[in-house]
Amino acid sequence: MDPHISLVTLGVADLTRARDFYVGLGWQPRFDQDGVVFFQAGGMVLGLWSREELAADSGVVDSGGWGGVTLAHNVRSPGEVDTVLERAESAGARIARSGAETPWGGYSGAFVDPDGHPWEVAHNPMWTLTDDGRTLL
Amino acid sequence: MDPHISLVTLGVADLTRARDFYVGLGWQPRFDQDGVVFFQAGGMVLGLWSREELAADSGVVDSGGWGGVTLAHNVRSPGEVDTVLERAESAGARIARSGAETPWGGYSGAFVDPDGHPWEVAHNPMWTLTDDGRTLL
Repeated sequence: MDPHISLVTLGVADLTRARDFYVGLGWQPRFDQDGVVFFQAGGMVLGLWSREELAADSGVVDSGGWGGVTLAHNVRSPGEVDTVLERAESAGARIARSGAETPWGGYSGAFVDPDGHPWEVAHNPMWTLTDDGRTLL
Repeated sequence: MDPHISLVTLGVADLTRARDFYVGLGWQPRFDQDGVVFFQAGGMVLGLWSREELAADSGVVDSGGWGGVTLAHNVRSPGEVDTVLERAESAGARIARSGAETPWGGYSGAFVDPDGHPWEVAHNPMWTLTDDGRTLL
């Protein structure tokens, strides 16, 4: 198994609300039919699907809240962290943590999408962001 | 916010067990200190961190089980799906769904890692896998 993640699927309660939120962040759906929405996210795919169907398909029991996964979106400067957090809030996110310097030498904040999925927005000066959206250690 | 995911962090109960599981899948840590493990996963990063600390950092309440996120690892053939599932089981995963043809015209199965995080392993003939590990719609 070579190390790559092809797809992150977020289970959602209301597909239209979830799609509109990500569109509000500036993302554009590349596939939107049969109850599934896919966004091309750099070299991978972000999917939105019924949380109930995703649980059944994944062979797990839904505990109903957060389950131990957080996504991160890295940007090129502390100012860009704040800009993304403002945009997320305007699109309907809850700001869980405002932008601030971190113990690891960067700057980050966090928002939670309408289905409770958290995203850290971070500037990590030790990591490389490529022009085509890849993040390299 | 341009559409990319930089990092997926999985909250874990036992960092050594979690790291050993992903090493057993064939992944190699690129950073392993201060209670955090990072793997380069194609153009993004997979992180392992204390689930309790991740919840606090993400500004969410942990519901203790699965919380609506499933990862997927796409491969180039149905046979490779079965090979990855076998390797995951050998490394300590629970097989949630054996490899089988899917309604969307592909072939997939699913495993659940030792911390309850599910992965679909899929061959989707309609998506493109690049040699450098990107998945394109």
